[in-house]
Amino acid sequence: MTGLHTLLPRPVVVRPAPGEHVVTSVAAATDVSTVALDPVAVPHPGGYRLSISPTGVEAVAHDPAGAFHATQTLRQLLGPDAFRAADIHRGPWTLPCGVVEDHPRFGWRGVLLDVARHFMPKAGVLRVLDLLAAHKLNVLHLHLTDDQGWRVEVPAFPRLTEVGAVRAGTWVGRQPDGDPTHDNRPHGGFYTTADLREIVAYARDRHITVVPEIDVPGHCQAAIAAYPELGVTGEPVEVWHGWGVSEDVLSPAESTVDFFRTVLDHVVDIFDSPVVCLGGDEVPTTQWHASAAAKRRAVELGLSSVDGLHGWFIAVLAQHLATHGRRVLGWDEILDVGDLPPGAVIASWRGEAAGVRAALAGHDVVMCPEQQVYLDHRQADHPDEPIPVGFVRTLADVHAYEPVPAELPAHAHHRVLGAQAQLWTEYLDNPRRVDYAAFPRLAAFAEVVWSPGEPRDQAEFLDRVATHHLPRLDALGVEYRPLAGPRPWQLRPGVPGRPRPVR
Amino acid sequence: MTGLHTLLPRPVVVRPAPGEHVVTSVAAATDVSTVALDPVAVPHPGGYRLSISPTGVEAVAHDPAGAFHATQTLRQLLGPDAFRAADIHRGPWTLPCGVVEDHPRFGWRGVLLDVARHFMPKAGVLRVLDLLAAHKLNVLHLHLTDDQGWRVEVPAFPRLTEVGAVRAGTWVGRQPDGDPTHDNRPHGGFYTTADLREIVAYARDRHITVVPEIDVPGHCQAAIAAYPELGVTGEPVEVWHGWGVSEDVLSPAESTVDFFRTVLDHVVDIFDSPVVCLGGDEVPTTQWHASAAAKRRAVELGLSSVDGLHGWFIAVLAQHLATHGRRVLGWDEILDVGDLPPGAVIASWRGEAAGVRAALAGHDVVMCPEQQVYLDHRQADHPDEPIPVGFVRTLADVHAYEPVPAELPAHAHHRVLGAQAQLWTEYLDNPRRVDYAAFPRLAAFAEVVWSPGEPRDQAEFLDRVATHHLPRLDALGVEYRPLAGPRPWQLRPGVPGRPRPVR
Repeated sequence: MTGLHTLLPRPVVVRPAPGEHVVTSVAAATDVSTVALDPVAVPHPGGYRLSISPTGVEAVAHDPAGAFHATQTLRQLLGPDAFRAADIHRGPWTLPCGVVEDHPRFGWRGVLLDVARHFMPKAGVLRVLDLLAAHKLNVLHLHLTDDQGWRVEVPAFPRLTEVGAVRAGTWVGRQPDGDPTHDNRPHGGFYTTADLREIVAYARDRHITVVPEIDVPGHCQAAIAAYPELGVTGEPVEVWHGWGVSEDVLSPAESTVDFFRTVLDHVVDIFDSPVVCLGGDEVPTTQWHASAAAKRRAVELGLSSVDGLHGWFIAVLAQHLATHGRRVLGWDEILDVGDLPPGAVIASWRGEAAGVRAALAGHDVVMCPEQQVYLDHRQADHPDEPIPVGFVRTLADVHAYEPVPAELPAHAHHRVLGAQAQLWTEYLDNPRRVDYAAFPRLAAFAEVVWSPGEPRDQAEFLDRVATHHLPRLDALGVEYRPLAGPRPWQLRPGVPGRPRPVR
Repeated sequence: MTGLHTLLPRPVVVRPAPGEHVVTSVAAATDVSTVALDPVAVPHPGGYRLSISPTGVEAVAHDPAGAFHATQTLRQLLGPDAFRAADIHRGPWTLPCGVVEDHPRFGWRGVLLDVARHFMPKAGVLRVLDLLAAHKLNVLHLHLTDDQGWRVEVPAFPRLTEVGAVRAGTWVGRQPDGDPTHDNRPHGGFYTTADLREIVAYARDRHITVVPEIDVPGHCQAAIAAYPELGVTGEPVEVWHGWGVSEDVLSPAESTVDFFRTVLDHVVDIFDSPVVCLGGDEVPTTQWHASAAAKRRAVELGLSSVDGLHGWFIAVLAQHLATHGRRVLGWDEILDVGDLPPGAVIASWRGEAAGVRAALAGHDVVMCPEQQVYLDHRQADHPDEPIPVGFVRTLADVHAYEPVPAELPAHAHHRVLGAQAQLWTEYLDNPRRVDYAAFPRLAAFAEVVWSPGEPRDQAEFLDRVATHHLPRLDALGVEYRPLAGPRPWQLRPGVPGRPRPVR
């Protein structure tokens, strides 16, 4: 029998009691309709209370999300076999007796999945949603567009996917900047409108919000490849095969803004998320500085320099999102390029300082510091780590992460909506590689954003993962990184990475 | 509304009627428990009868498999949206009125999936089972072991997966024989015992039998890499990175046979299939001819030549399967290397002649001719076809395939259990490539093995696929080959294939 102490993320309160309750099936035991809703008895949004006795289960939740969370807890208590797609369990299904009182610490428990650098077919995305649900994570930030690919069908602009969804080849690992070679294997794919509606509906069934990202005015080379008139130079470019930051950015012409207004009209028709990400990160201004038209445009717009076009782009498209009742989410660069649009949410990625600044200025923030929660970064400082890039963040490091920056005064803590783990896919070229990078660290992250901040017992956590959670991931077919290091087929000898020295 | 004429595979009888019936949900309309079982009213195994009127659906089936088939037909009638993982349907769900009377032509409607050459993670195999079920296919032949990888955990012999489940790299495409280079990317993976039980149970829920294949005495290099004493030379070998037929075959020592008896004991404990495949194809005898021990062993066994060891291997392991109440399935080479074991089933792959011979000799056969139903072979005679190998078999060609050989006299027709499409994965290195090779041709194959042999209207079929079935595959997220040719990201420029000139 799987005890209450095995749960991950750790609940707020558990009170084990002797005995067990026998159930007929996983489906029966995790049927959300058996959870009563009572927002008075369970005061926290997303919260639930389970009382398991030998004769039955009493399950009460604050809201439908809480009811769903209750069923995920019950599934963990049934044991690893409950995570399989078909019943192979021998003996009766049992639940341990006791009480669980639980609710999430943060409302934004997010994971970014980059489907632009490497496309993940729909089945893989649905599977990711299942994995998020099993960990009580509730936001999937889908990074849909970038220099290396455009992944969302937009009926008004068919070339975005005809041209922008495919590249001729790919850098394998991190080549030296400027290296013109690639692997000569075409890569591509995109989601149809119906596919995305399905992903959104599938997520909604699991109380997960899908936040779409359409990156502007940088990270746009794939769009410019499809429609060169969107670019500053007007010259044809290819969908990029390399990694880094392309200098090809959007032209500030009104026609470009109109183009993206139309794109966003389609995006908000598909996605019901109250927040839409416009990117706004890593915008080289070289092309604008070299363009007479861009300079004229900046003057027209009353900007003191073409550098101001960055913030102007975000502001004008955020305003358009506002007409649809949506808030803008942007990476933390947008803090420094002009007045923030009303209601803007800041994704603090270059560290914690931007998040602190934004929160103190009265903006909501989602903490995504690359030093802490970029899960594409290496999991160990060992030469065998496949395509080692970025900082070393071990499982224990991620578990020790605290989303509320120590520098942030208490009066602004409520501005931290939560945190988000990032799965950038330059070096994760298929779903197996994504599994490797994500797990088991995403389990640690789930506990960070769900469970009370204190106490945090690292040894207990690592033992709980090894003893109780990895068997669940095994049952789910997750190809995680074993605690002792990569399996032989997870190695990538000779593929250049780009480790960063500081932790 | 999706009419009765859109069904694929084509049912035995359809009688459309005016009107439609409105249902509340896909789940309600395809609930197998609403299908009555009546083996008298529906006399054919696997058969069912649907009678849809504006007021309701009357569904009767011969057996549980028939009931399942009935629900798959109902799902098609609900329209493509019914194939999505979440509800995005607008407007009511409706079924067209009329009658469907249906049953399968053949009892063995198989697909071989080669998970040895390229491992497919469990989630992919479960997805393949869903796709088979949607096409009323009922056998998944899992090719679990080969020179290039061993994919089934065997607790008694851990090195089979520790060593045999991984290779150092892979040929990309079909290199010239003997080429020692490879891509230097380790490849591997295996299924745990629990994973395989889950796959079997998931298949059983869909009335699909999973036939495991453990290939002997050739195609064994991965096993020999793990345990060199299984080989003739005793020398260490690596899991193979190339394609073709390895000369490393099993030693005929009693210890080798015992080893495989233990392997098969484990295999039959997992798989409930009445038939287990022992391979038996492509067995080079060079090493036996060069081995004094092998020659002595042949004499001991009363064989006239070491060549006889091939048939002896199959016979002795078939006998072991018989002690477990299982029949042996073998590729057609086993017809020519000794007396066939009692109850042996022949997979006729080098053409139809072997199947005819076996059937006339009183053996059951499954027709798998490589000239017709090897779906890894190219789908068009066009240079853009990605990694073109083998014969050209178009969608129309597969639809025109007739499983009962014209040369087979009527009295032996009942020996043809059915047919099987093969998905060998030397050149299908991920699930997206498998989708491309399999579809839409597997839809044609499904109709060949399910629907009455006559009439076969090619134009009607091609139109039905284009108009009605591809939208279902789109909804399922199947990355099929578009009828007009590969999408840009499905191309593989510069990768050597090995087309064969005859059709």
